[in-house]
Amino acid sequence: MNAPTAADRIWTAALVIIGDEILSGRTQDANLAYLARWLNIQGVRLREARVVPDDMEAIGAAVKACLAAHDYVFTTGGIGPTHDDITVDAVAAALGLPVVYHPDAEATLRAYYGDRITEARLRMARVPQGADLIPNPETGAPGIRLGRLFIMAGVPKITQGMLRGLDGTLEGGRPVLSASVGAWTQESRVADLLSATQAKHPEVQIGSYPFWREGRTGANFVVRAVDPQALRLAVEALMQGLSADGIEPVEGEL
Amino acid sequence: MNAPTAADRIWTAALVIIGDEILSGRTQDANLAYLARWLNIQGVRLREARVVPDDMEAIGAAVKACLAAHDYVFTTGGIGPTHDDITVDAVAAALGLPVVYHPDAEATLRAYYGDRITEARLRMARVPQGADLIPNPETGAPGIRLGRLFIMAGVPKITQGMLRGLDGTLEGGRPVLSASVGAWTQESRVADLLSATQAKHPEVQIGSYPFWREGRTGANFVVRAVDPQALRLAVEALMQGLSADGIEPVEGEL
Repeated sequence: MNAPTAADRIWTAALVIIGDEILSGRTQDANLAYLARWLNIQGVRLREARVVPDDMEAIGAAVKACLAAHDYVFTTGGIGPTHDDITVDAVAAALGLPVVYHPDAEATLRAYYGDRITEARLRMARVPQGADLIPNPETGAPGIRLGRLFIMAGVPKITQGMLRGLDGTLEGGRPVLSASVGAWTQESRVADLLSATQAKHPEVQIGSYPFWREGRTGANFVVRAVDPQALRLAVEALMQGLSADGIEPVEGEL
Repeated sequence: MNAPTAADRIWTAALVIIGDEILSGRTQDANLAYLARWLNIQGVRLREARVVPDDMEAIGAAVKACLAAHDYVFTTGGIGPTHDDITVDAVAAALGLPVVYHPDAEATLRAYYGDRITEARLRMARVPQGADLIPNPETGAPGIRLGRLFIMAGVPKITQGMLRGLDGTLEGGRPVLSASVGAWTQESRVADLLSATQAKHPEVQIGSYPFWREGRTGANFVVRAVDPQALRLAVEALMQGLSADGIEPVEGEL
């Protein structure tokens, strides 16, 4: 075993998804999965997510709790020009900061809207004092970075554009690698094998995800690890174990 | 105004989504939106959701925090037969309860599996002491009800079957009604109108959801209220306001 290095430090993040439309079931969130994969490439693990309504206190409490528990916190939603866009105010109030107009954001919005600029549109230049901007390649309204806190749009295409601009700017550790083994079996039939394989390979994490398709029962076993060698060994052990049990394993997802 | 009645009490719920596969971006949650709509029919509002990893402490802390803040708490995920299914243990530990085998669940599983019953499969009969079962019409493994806490499966088809069995069994208030108005306009152009309409109709909540489609910018305005008359009046006011601004409103979602 090598001594632990800075690269072994696990960097974690939380996502706060803001919006009545998610909690009412009207809109399906599409940012969590994208952010999770993007974070993993940066060497950061998404460890928690919360969905909160358009409510000052709920937003503020979630952001504060997540900042206390994780290295990075992302929010999505509630940064547009309308009355229900209260993320900036809620974050600023929770952190005890005044809300100010960011001069660069104001300039960007004035350039984007020209003589159609209005007070409502300038609302999108408001930030908690001390914040930097995250460029938005899709529309004029920027995201906001306040140290370890990233305030992003709710519309997935816009959020994804903002994340592209942040590529490589976060300090992180090693990404989690994963590999899948699929089999047409009930997961309950191989529970002991999974458990024994997990015990023999403590450096990896094995997840079991059953499915029912075409009238048949199957499962995908996902092995996750930061070390490629440990991942390879666990996958091989699992595949050999399944074969020994008379179950044909498939490398990759079924 | 009538005096407030028991029907005016707002019943709230939280959802705790359990699973590394959601936080890694592998699997897209599909239970939140379904549960939200189902709860609304029962007269209960989904007010919060949290996504936590397969970790005893994280699961326990989220369930306890949500129980303290809401009338009902639902969990999804982690109740299968494999080593990564730890929801029952995590909930029991957090609430200081022992884990026991529920005799009815054991009988159901023995009937379902016959002579293929194993210790791993019997794991699915384990419940926190004092719990009742929620029937699972899809597979043998039941959900678990512990007072205000509902422990459900992660597979959407199974969770939906469990919820059907719970139809009408929760005490709740009045469902939230909603109506939508769509328009091909930038939401920023009508932000003042939305804000003024919201101020004049405090009994409703107006949300604004922009979209970009076919090279055009549009927005849907969703009005929510428990009172059908208040909903109708706010929708009419909004449609008249849009027309007066030279914007053609469409009743329903664009």
